[in-house]
Amino acid sequence: MTDTSLSRLFDPQGIAIIGASATPGKIGAMPITLLLQHGYSGRIIPVNPRANTIAGLPALPGLDALDTDVDLAILAVPAAHAAQALERARPGQVGAAVVFTSGFSETGADGAAQQERLCAIARERGIRLLGPNCLGFMNVRRNVYATFSPAPANGVVAPGGIGMVSQSGAFGAYAYSMARERGLGLSHWISTGNEADIDVADCIEWLARDADTRVIMAYMEGCRDGAKLRRALAAARTAGKPVVVTKIGRTQAGAQAAASHTAALAGDDAVYDALFRQYGALRARTIEEFFNLGYALDTWKQPPQGRRLGIFTISGGVGALMADEAADTGLALPEPAADAQARLLERVPFASGRNPVDVTGQAVSEPGLLLATADDMLADGRYDALAVFLAAAGSSEALWPTFETFARQMQARHPDVPLAISALFPPARRRELERLGCLVFPDPSAAIRTIGAVAGLAANGDSSVAEEIPATAVANAPALLDAYNEVQAMDLLRQAGLPTSPCALAIDADAAVRAVADMRTAGPGAGSEDVPVVLKVVSPDITHKSDVGGVKLNLRGEDAVRRAYADIMASVRQHRPDARIDGVLVAPMAPKGVECIAGVHCDPVFGPVVMFGLGGVFVEVLKDVSFRLAPFGRDDALEMIREIKGYALLQGARGAPPCDVDALADALAALSRFAHARREDFSSVEINPLLALPERQGVVALDAVVIRGGD
Amino acid sequence: MTDTSLSRLFDPQGIAIIGASATPGKIGAMPITLLLQHGYSGRIIPVNPRANTIAGLPALPGLDALDTDVDLAILAVPAAHAAQALERARPGQVGAAVVFTSGFSETGADGAAQQERLCAIARERGIRLLGPNCLGFMNVRRNVYATFSPAPANGVVAPGGIGMVSQSGAFGAYAYSMARERGLGLSHWISTGNEADIDVADCIEWLARDADTRVIMAYMEGCRDGAKLRRALAAARTAGKPVVVTKIGRTQAGAQAAASHTAALAGDDAVYDALFRQYGALRARTIEEFFNLGYALDTWKQPPQGRRLGIFTISGGVGALMADEAADTGLALPEPAADAQARLLERVPFASGRNPVDVTGQAVSEPGLLLATADDMLADGRYDALAVFLAAAGSSEALWPTFETFARQMQARHPDVPLAISALFPPARRRELERLGCLVFPDPSAAIRTIGAVAGLAANGDSSVAEEIPATAVANAPALLDAYNEVQAMDLLRQAGLPTSPCALAIDADAAVRAVADMRTAGPGAGSEDVPVVLKVVSPDITHKSDVGGVKLNLRGEDAVRRAYADIMASVRQHRPDARIDGVLVAPMAPKGVECIAGVHCDPVFGPVVMFGLGGVFVEVLKDVSFRLAPFGRDDALEMIREIKGYALLQGARGAPPCDVDALADALAALSRFAHARREDFSSVEINPLLALPERQGVVALDAVVIRGGD
Repeated sequence: MTDTSLSRLFDPQGIAIIGASATPGKIGAMPITLLLQHGYSGRIIPVNPRANTIAGLPALPGLDALDTDVDLAILAVPAAHAAQALERARPGQVGAAVVFTSGFSETGADGAAQQERLCAIARERGIRLLGPNCLGFMNVRRNVYATFSPAPANGVVAPGGIGMVSQSGAFGAYAYSMARERGLGLSHWISTGNEADIDVADCIEWLARDADTRVIMAYMEGCRDGAKLRRALAAARTAGKPVVVTKIGRTQAGAQAAASHTAALAGDDAVYDALFRQYGALRARTIEEFFNLGYALDTWKQPPQGRRLGIFTISGGVGALMADEAADTGLALPEPAADAQARLLERVPFASGRNPVDVTGQAVSEPGLLLATADDMLADGRYDALAVFLAAAGSSEALWPTFETFARQMQARHPDVPLAISALFPPARRRELERLGCLVFPDPSAAIRTIGAVAGLAANGDSSVAEEIPATAVANAPALLDAYNEVQAMDLLRQAGLPTSPCALAIDADAAVRAVADMRTAGPGAGSEDVPVVLKVVSPDITHKSDVGGVKLNLRGEDAVRRAYADIMASVRQHRPDARIDGVLVAPMAPKGVECIAGVHCDPVFGPVVMFGLGGVFVEVLKDVSFRLAPFGRDDALEMIREIKGYALLQGARGAPPCDVDALADALAALSRFAHARREDFSSVEINPLLALPERQGVVALDAVVIRGGD
Repeated sequence: MTDTSLSRLFDPQGIAIIGASATPGKIGAMPITLLLQHGYSGRIIPVNPRANTIAGLPALPGLDALDTDVDLAILAVPAAHAAQALERARPGQVGAAVVFTSGFSETGADGAAQQERLCAIARERGIRLLGPNCLGFMNVRRNVYATFSPAPANGVVAPGGIGMVSQSGAFGAYAYSMARERGLGLSHWISTGNEADIDVADCIEWLARDADTRVIMAYMEGCRDGAKLRRALAAARTAGKPVVVTKIGRTQAGAQAAASHTAALAGDDAVYDALFRQYGALRARTIEEFFNLGYALDTWKQPPQGRRLGIFTISGGVGALMADEAADTGLALPEPAADAQARLLERVPFASGRNPVDVTGQAVSEPGLLLATADDMLADGRYDALAVFLAAAGSSEALWPTFETFARQMQARHPDVPLAISALFPPARRRELERLGCLVFPDPSAAIRTIGAVAGLAANGDSSVAEEIPATAVANAPALLDAYNEVQAMDLLRQAGLPTSPCALAIDADAAVRAVADMRTAGPGAGSEDVPVVLKVVSPDITHKSDVGGVKLNLRGEDAVRRAYADIMASVRQHRPDARIDGVLVAPMAPKGVECIAGVHCDPVFGPVVMFGLGGVFVEVLKDVSFRLAPFGRDDALEMIREIKGYALLQGARGAPPCDVDALADALAALSRFAHARREDFSSVEINPLLALPERQGVVALDAVVIRGGD
């Protein structure tokens, strides 16, 4: 459902400008100038107690002098007067307010109090707030210029399908200007500033339901309501509207800079990264990438449906350069069919018929060659996108008819294969090709990188949306304990549906012997007679068990178990006479497998987040881990497993058999359901090691630490 | 010394065009048109047996009709007639020939034979050859247009300091057009095509000595003469001229495409990568990066002298985005001095005084703020470069005087701090700033990335040049054996100056016991009484020694050694009765350290290449290795050690003490000297493990395989 209060804001039938001014360049003058200049069709109501008319329009002294309702009030008065101005509205009279002025929470405690007063007054009167300390917004199609940004004064962008929202005004203004320079069309342009009420997530959700918007481009510095952002991204995904997002603070240096800049809680960047992947939002690292992605998604009818790329060029060398980039971005370059290759070589004997296809400079002298090559390559549906490099030929006006015919015919004959051309075209020619649905990049590598990123969007499009997964597996929740020792932690995980090594807490040697006997009949990772067992001391006071003689490995037979129990107790009591001892953990020695680590921590913004990595140097030295917000399904879990750099180790590197990756994914999904369902009860879980066994043999959690949270 | 034959080619006093044509657009007409149009000052001699005059110039029937010498002949005749045309020259008459036409080695065996004939005739007559199958060259300053590329017809580039050379004609033409679009000035533009004689390396070396060239930009697909390329890069480095290079085939897909495109031997890409690092050449992965680097090196008087970057912006958010990029590219962002921060905050109370400094939108309304901020930040020499983001303000003509003053004053007051501005300027304004020595980038991240790349150049500038290292350590080379067992391999490395574990070959139990006794007095990694020893079978037929009971660890005392010897012999004879047994290797058990791998392989183009990596998953799963061409010194060795992703493990990760990285570097440098000095004798060496001990304790090679080569 569309949020109607935001619709009143972004598509207002009337606008009151509080602090309206007749002085050009004043923030109270700029919106009036722009609205009049661009023919806004609604009512414009200047509000200024010291003027009778402004820009030829009758001015009112205050909102209380207005006898009708008005959808939008622009507040262009100093921070100290903003609340007061809004106070003069009747409840229900004003739909929304855009607050331009700064001097609120961004300036410290006094400003924050001022902002809180403003919010309270707005809430009382049912007024939604955009800002304060923002550049306002523009509804490009309806000529609503509720902004004092100087960017539109230097030329307006064309109306189009991109909805753009930016927390930062400066970034927003720059992005507006870039959109104009690059010829992108916008539906809406919104800056959210301090986000006292409406934030980037609200805008994404509203744009997801806005009929004029096909693609959403968002810039954010942080987020205070993780659930809302998830809902917004889910809405965009459901609506089939791709989201391109730039979020600052990828690195420690960037995060520090962001923290000193914005009052908003930035949160852990890795979690944002996981969030964006999970909801199929494309994260852009640079402004250029931000625009390349938005440009592709807006210009093409649809992104490539898969990752199979065809390349043809008039330069074998640049073809290889493009192949390098394709490999970097994970695009496949299948060869053309044998008969297509034969036809290519018939036409151009010294061409290369493989992919990248090199049609040589002959393409320039033989007008039909471009289309014939594309027809051959695309005849049997083996490519999801086509990239063509034409070098400097684009500059030649004599060749323009050739290129125009090519682009037009491609559109007609191969409408389902998105096309990108790399060449140096004059700007007007480039626009013509874009109108034909063809992307144009001066840099061939940028073309490939962009295809790789948006083809990824289609590939991610099918994975399960987290909200839809029921948390049934953890219905019968056990009672909460104050603290969890290893055995209790393993019990808990077992009840959550995770395969765990059988283990038992023994409080004397007899119990240890009994536990071993019980295990002979038990589940995965346990074993037959010949699996030896391990005994480990269990104590809340002892972390490094081996250092105090608290671990005995490879025990076979009753005697060995009894002796080990006695030895452990003696050694631990000698080393740590003060330690509380819960008993001894009895477990079978682990089978052979790859040691993984899975964990859950609670992000202050997004709640429980599941972490996955490989044991040893991978997590500790290489920080080679992946994250997903809980809960998630098997597809997301498989993605997070494949994402780590050490994935080859799970595929059977160094002569080892491949691991049971499906079972690993199921375990991570189960962990995520547990973490989500019990998010109030537990603040962190670490399973280390989670042992991945060979294919079809499952996984088994060998040890776990569970920390209670919530209170 | 400048190669005078190339100087005759690239700066000819007279040019004969063989196959000269009066038909516009013909390859025999284009150079004449361009030479006349751009006022080439030398003699132009059309050669065509079927014309008396061409373009108003008297035409000759053949070179034999020319009574003087001529520096350059352009061959624009079909492949079949090229050799014949050149044959008509007298020895010494023609300095060089540019062969435009295709149909030579790029078309197969017949073409290759044709090319060889052409070369032989040229050699006989002392003629240097550019091409065949190339677009020719341009000497921009002297108006020499020895090309049939259509690129200059669409507008010529300005004369400037960049010498550009491209193996590929299409890439070259595109790069020429890009240079024109981006306003870069060229000294020379050269395409080398099939490289029958002159290759990219020759051109780099010549440009390194050319007075008109400050920066060299090269595109290459492969190289047949590694030594020449090294010499060329060394010449550029000695001349202080930075080299930006794009080489295709970074990835397997790209290398495959390159191989199918070019007849040139591509070689292992990782070796090129090592080569470029070693000689301080900047490798660009994309055409855009190629130009960004060339642009920075050409526009700035000198690249940043270090990696300390100052950033100030009118947007805190974009500042953070730039900080992210700085972190990615390894630039440091030190804070301004405390008093500078205080002054900044005095001027703009809600600014951020740290780095990135955020001067807020106030910079736009207060003209002096930009310069005041820069003055404050740069007062105490704590930054090597400054990056400034001005958002959309660049589009405003009203603000232009502010920006122009800023750039001009920066040049005057802080000439040693290279400046990059990111903003959207109109093209003419951008050019003005560039003339003031200031870089302009629409994308702030591209500005940072470029600074990071060229600042790296200065940092690399001091490392030792390989050629200068004497290979003294391997003067007393031992006699060559047919094959090397482990003990002989270790002996060889010891003589090469590498620290090796003491080890001896024992052919009976008595010898084994004696060897242990001898070791008590020996070198590094050996030890006192209490170091146990290891015995391993030595056999050319047995690779996996443990599998046949051929290894006994942790032996103490004479009895244990005798028993182990007997056990090994019995077990090996039982498992592998056919195996030849050289004896048993006796060595002390290894001390604690980080297991590394060092190796040498012989690259067909560049000769011996040293590899370094960490043992285990790092090399085997993550392919985390670095390379350098032998020989090299300690600085290069330290760089190659720091380059690997697992470097943290050598710094003392996971609670371990930091390793003796200096000793490791010395060992790699010694290995490189050995590999270089004995490059005729050995085809590969692998030291695995090379154990890195804690700081000040050195390194020790524990095992090695040496493969003899050469015959």
